[in-house]
Order: sequence, then C-alpha cells, then structure tokens
Amino acid sequence: MDEFIHKLATEGQNFASLATTMPDGTPQVSLVWIDSDGENLIVNTAEGRIKTNNIRRNGSAALAIADSDNHYRQAMIRGTVVEDTHEGADEHINSLAKRYLGVDEYPHRQPGEVRVIFKIKPENVMILDM
Amino acid sequence: MDEFIHKLATEGQNFASLATTMPDGTPQVSLVWIDSDGENLIVNTAEGRIKTNNIRRNGSAALAIADSDNHYRQAMIRGTVVEDTHEGADEHINSLAKRYLGVDEYPHRQPGEVRVIFKIKPENVMILDM
Repeated sequence: MDEFIHKLATEGQNFASLATTMPDGTPQVSLVWIDSDGENLIVNTAEGRIKTNNIRRNGSAALAIADSDNHYRQAMIRGTVVEDTHEGADEHINSLAKRYLGVDEYPHRQPGEVRVIFKIKPENVMILDM
Repeated sequence: MDEFIHKLATEGQNFASLATTMPDGTPQVSLVWIDSDGENLIVNTAEGRIKTNNIRRNGSAALAIADSDNHYRQAMIRGTVVEDTHEGADEHINSLAKRYLGVDEYPHRQPGEVRVIFKIKPENVMILDM
C-alpha cells in the first residue's frame, strides 16, 4: 500500500467515507474510523448493519480518506474485501476508541453487538495532495 | 429537506462524500464540495468524470456530510437525481470556489471542461448529532 494512504489511515483522527452497494444497486456511504496494517485498509463495524450486509454481498468497498487538517490531502480507493472476521474485533474497536476518543473502551457498544473487521485491499487508487 | 442537512451543506466549508455505483456494481466514492437549495443537495462536477457517468447510469447517489468542526455532527443520505444540467454550472462552481477557497473564479478548470450540476433529492436520511 502507498505510504501516503497508510499514514492517512493510521495517524491522527482522520475519518474515512466507506461506500457500499445496496441490494438494488444504488450506492450507500457512511463515515467511519479507519485503520491500516500497511497492506490492507481496516474497517471495524458490527453485524446487522447495512454496510456490513452490503460489503458481504458485493465483496467490494470504496473508501475516501482526507487529512482532517487539510482536506485537499486525500486518497480515494476502490478495493476488494480480503478478510471478514470477528477475531480481534473487540480489541480493535477499543484501540480505535483510544486513538479517536482518547478512551480505553469503545463507549457506543449496543447490547448484544458483534463487531466485525473487514480488511480491504486497495486496487484502484487516486491521490490528491495539494 | 431537514434544516440540519441544509445547514451542513451550505454553511462553512464542509466536504461531502459522494458515493456512486460503477458499471460492474462495485461502489465508488469521492470527496466533493456541496451545496443545497433547501430542497435538493447540489453537486457540481464535470463531463467525462467517473462519478458523472455513474450517476447518469444509475440515477442514484449517496452523500455523507460532516461538520468540519465536529465530525460527530453528520448526515448520511441516499437519494435520486432529479436534475442534471449544464445551465448555471459555471457560475455555480465559481460561487463554490468563493465559499471554499475565497476566490472569485474556480482555479482548477481544465481546458475544454464542461461543468455539470446534479440535484439530488434526499430519500433515506440518517443523522448523527453528538
């Protein structure tokens, strides 16, 4: 993965726009916390969400990440889902809560919520760095 | 349109994430300037762009808009395109350049570029206001 994208996804508190495709083929987008392992982008969501179901059905996702200090430094990515797992997802959402909110535990957990990690391999990338 | 969304789309320099669907059904997303006429969300793009072709083919678009001062104030919108026009698009991109960049004329115009306005009627809306 491009180092520029890895940094956008791991430094600071940049949000990502996560786009998916609905069952009827129309687009959907939401704003999410974002992470990277250097190879794939990592999104942490939950079972039962629209985006979770859309990503599983379609196998693809698109992401846009902008530097929160300068929106004209940004990456737009289309990719495929290479991993879909519950493993480590609770610990991972807590680590994101630490980074984004400065707290040790993710504070928005719903009763019975099952967290899901999607790893998304960047395949088509556009970078803007102004 | 919800007043909360209209304000997000017209006050300050908030960016919108514009999601579209590619010909193969996979999602695509880019970051764009955003506007509203109180009834529809307004996106100004150009002929020949991936997003322009996707929106025309699909007839739908999704948008997420966050308050640049507080990303936890945000709206996620799915909608249909109710207008697709060149009319007024040059003046409109200049007005967005004024709002977002503080300049009288849009500075990134390419030779031969034809600007397009899409008006998107919000149909499914989720608001987060924390």
